[in-house]
Amino acid sequence: MGQSGRLTSQHKESHGVEGIFTAEAKTHDASVRRVAVSVLGYLKGKYPQLSFRHRTSISKAEINSALQKIDRELGQTLFVSDASIQPDGGIIEVKDDNGNCRVILVSEAKYQGRDIENISRGVLVGKKRNQDLMVTGNAIERAHKNISEIANYMLDESHFPYLFFLEGSNFMTQDITIRRPDGRTVTLNYNSGALNRLDRLTSANYGMPINTNLCRNKFIQHRGSTIMLQAASIYTHGDGREWEEQEMFRIMSDIAATSLQVLGSDLFIQLTGK
Amino acid sequence: MGQSGRLTSQHKESHGVEGIFTAEAKTHDASVRRVAVSVLGYLKGKYPQLSFRHRTSISKAEINSALQKIDRELGQTLFVSDASIQPDGGIIEVKDDNGNCRVILVSEAKYQGRDIENISRGVLVGKKRNQDLMVTGNAIERAHKNISEIANYMLDESHFPYLFFLEGSNFMTQDITIRRPDGRTVTLNYNSGALNRLDRLTSANYGMPINTNLCRNKFIQHRGSTIMLQAASIYTHGDGREWEEQEMFRIMSDIAATSLQVLGSDLFIQLTGK
Repeated sequence: MGQSGRLTSQHKESHGVEGIFTAEAKTHDASVRRVAVSVLGYLKGKYPQLSFRHRTSISKAEINSALQKIDRELGQTLFVSDASIQPDGGIIEVKDDNGNCRVILVSEAKYQGRDIENISRGVLVGKKRNQDLMVTGNAIERAHKNISEIANYMLDESHFPYLFFLEGSNFMTQDITIRRPDGRTVTLNYNSGALNRLDRLTSANYGMPINTNLCRNKFIQHRGSTIMLQAASIYTHGDGREWEEQEMFRIMSDIAATSLQVLGSDLFIQLTGK
Repeated sequence: MGQSGRLTSQHKESHGVEGIFTAEAKTHDASVRRVAVSVLGYLKGKYPQLSFRHRTSISKAEINSALQKIDRELGQTLFVSDASIQPDGGIIEVKDDNGNCRVILVSEAKYQGRDIENISRGVLVGKKRNQDLMVTGNAIERAHKNISEIANYMLDESHFPYLFFLEGSNFMTQDITIRRPDGRTVTLNYNSGALNRLDRLTSANYGMPINTNLCRNKFIQHRGSTIMLQAASIYTHGDGREWEEQEMFRIMSDIAATSLQVLGSDLFIQLTGK
């Protein structure tokens, strides 16, 4: 809380998002959790009528309980009693007019594919250490588990503030050419099946555009009924580079703000004091 | 087609599911894909008025196309043009009265946790080869990706015939005690967080009971609207043992039959000849 308090004060002084981050903070090891705590401080400063909290995990027991409230057939199974999920950046919640905590931001940062780093340093990989490109993994596919859990937890909501920051050569959307220390250049083709892993995640946003705030749930017609789509918001730099904290802060604040707007009628009394 | 034809003939002779599998076929390396092909043959024999097919993959381009038909904002992104998904047991489809292929079965078999096998063989594991239990992995979390893709592909349907057969010590629902060749016994506690990974998959069925046919979609109330739940059907033996082909066949046939029933009105003309 010390850090978020400090950032809030800075924010007040500078009257905006701009002033919060110093050049020093734009490090390459930007942590999504650290930024989430900053966003918490920012929200506290911007909406002093509301109560916010940040936490690092949600237990399966809580998720089951939320599901059971919706329908008693749901949320029945639990095999490991203390099972929980821990999104990288944790969860930010706001207290509504009824005293219930409502999720307004869940953030994850996934780095996959060190090819850019390896090539620019002149590191060769593979068993014989004679290849430019690493064998690409599938770790990103595991990301769907937490999405599914939070989607269930928020099944009764009309927003889904689940945010991914993707980094690394497996998430490029444009070709890039990298120069090795010895002068040789290597071109990475973003649309190579051996390199790109974006398609492994995009079912989580129903193939809607990336780098877009999809926090507001979409409702579509289904044979005379309606179905609700909970879509994750997926952000990637086209060139695979890492996210700076200020960029992450801006996107995270934007999604949290959308959540608050969707929740508006449930926050109305606190916001208006009436 | 040779095999499925042969099994269909056997099925006709024996007048039921029972006669199809010989003791020989009940091997421990039961392949869900082989059983899926048998189910195809069974369905062809049982419903000669209908046309079925089995295929091993669905392309992302097809999934995108299905999403676009529902809503033009969906299914826009594709980074690797030939990206596809390959469920272990493939996909079985039926042709409807309009000539469209409709999915009636998607099956997967996941084996995770070799502890039972290792202990019963007296194999110790770990760096120093002095432990009974392996470090448990998280591979099962990747299963959510294909679930998500097929759920999107079937967003316009009212059934979701996605079936998991889980095997191995990470999917137990009861304690078991195993005797090593040297006589020492080891008890595996199913509800240990170090061993059990069922909770990593159950968000896919909204925490509804396992070992249950959840093929028919559930519709629940959501703030005055209705939302549709697509739940995977998850099957595990409580003691972590492998699935025999005859058991798999029975469950897969059951789920395919449910799909056909849900699709009934779209198959009516073919079924009745009217």
